[in-house]
Amino acid sequence: MGEAGQDESRVTMLERGIHILQSFRPTGQPQTLSEIARRTDLPKSTTHRLVDSLVAQDLLDRTPDGLVLGRAVFELGELVPIKMRLREAALPFMEDLYEATHETIHLAVRDGLDVLYVEKIRGHSGVDVPSRVGGRLPMSSTGLGKTLLAFSPAALVDEVVSRPLRRLTAKSITDPVVLQNELAAIRVAGVGYDHEEATLGVSCVAAPVLVRGVPVAGISVTVPSDQLQPGRLAPAVRTAALALSRVLSR
Amino acid sequence: MGEAGQDESRVTMLERGIHILQSFRPTGQPQTLSEIARRTDLPKSTTHRLVDSLVAQDLLDRTPDGLVLGRAVFELGELVPIKMRLREAALPFMEDLYEATHETIHLAVRDGLDVLYVEKIRGHSGVDVPSRVGGRLPMSSTGLGKTLLAFSPAALVDEVVSRPLRRLTAKSITDPVVLQNELAAIRVAGVGYDHEEATLGVSCVAAPVLVRGVPVAGISVTVPSDQLQPGRLAPAVRTAALALSRVLSR
Repeated sequence: MGEAGQDESRVTMLERGIHILQSFRPTGQPQTLSEIARRTDLPKSTTHRLVDSLVAQDLLDRTPDGLVLGRAVFELGELVPIKMRLREAALPFMEDLYEATHETIHLAVRDGLDVLYVEKIRGHSGVDVPSRVGGRLPMSSTGLGKTLLAFSPAALVDEVVSRPLRRLTAKSITDPVVLQNELAAIRVAGVGYDHEEATLGVSCVAAPVLVRGVPVAGISVTVPSDQLQPGRLAPAVRTAALALSRVLSR
Repeated sequence: MGEAGQDESRVTMLERGIHILQSFRPTGQPQTLSEIARRTDLPKSTTHRLVDSLVAQDLLDRTPDGLVLGRAVFELGELVPIKMRLREAALPFMEDLYEATHETIHLAVRDGLDVLYVEKIRGHSGVDVPSRVGGRLPMSSTGLGKTLLAFSPAALVDEVVSRPLRRLTAKSITDPVVLQNELAAIRVAGVGYDHEEATLGVSCVAAPVLVRGVPVAGISVTVPSDQLQPGRLAPAVRTAALALSRVLSR
């Protein structure tokens, strides 16, 4: 095998190591060595050696329940700019919103055709929702996603509606025309709603964080559907999003 | 080179890739390819190939400012158990404490001889402190660290005092006897204080989160030193830490 070929196979080894880390998505549940080998489709001996190396570097931890992602992954994760900078800037405004509503507050960005949750704060009484910091949901079926989409270039909207719209609940929007109309309404109102489209019994109000017209993030308040009071919540969410826009536009 | 030797060098390639990710610690600042090669002491061609592979897997992102840690690192970081489980359980109590004090609230664990910050919430008026989620400080010079240490096995205390105690400010404790006495006082009071030992002008009150006697985490309130009111803050911090202990002990 020539020098280039060897290097090739070496880089593949890095990719395999990363593949092992990725096999913990999306739940982070502990895995045995055999489970990792099965999920990554790697020979058990290779898995063994790579896992040893990842443990030695604190990227994996051995626990009584099995292997889990290690502290070095957490420490590195906190250095990713969307997390570090966006969260740092957004947190005071999210806290204001929490204090005003005592509901679950989300901060998210768009990543591809998904909403990627960057921060979530909640108190004791916040509703139970499937969102998770670092987790994703389709844009078309969440208040934050529709709001980010409404202020995105038309080409992105076209891409979303060119595929089947994913149904998370019976109330998810699956008709492209309904979605387009709703996006137009969001652009006019400056806020978007989610009426049980991601979780039955749960609704939300979202506003975009625009920096020079680009929706860099969105903020939302999530409430039990019977407590959705747009007149009270929409101005609060818009105020928080506008305040964060101003800070980020400096 | 035999099969085993080749595998060896392949695993080394994984280690080098990880080393590139680690080179972004502790600040997460953007780096050029040359900076990464210099910091990791890798040949530029190897760095190039490894960086390409890391970018392809979303572990690094190319930005106008240089290379930064990518979204996949953030997403994986959120799946690390200390982050996912501890934070999830702690957040409502941290929010209570924030609402009662409007000061900066920290959640931390011990990692080796350091305090590792797992969560930090603050409002607009919170004091400026060097702590950062995912960041570390020496145990002996922080309120959280001393509190975690006070409830740790004596062997760990011996290990800490067997080395020079790091001085972060003129008020950091550097005398092992003074530290030992303070740890004894913390065990009696159930709360620990930091009097400008990590940052001049900033003090804090911390309480341990004990699960079956083991200090699994600590919670603290950080305030400008002239506003340190132990009579008001200590019961609030203890209450939050005790409530979290109860949840985690279930």
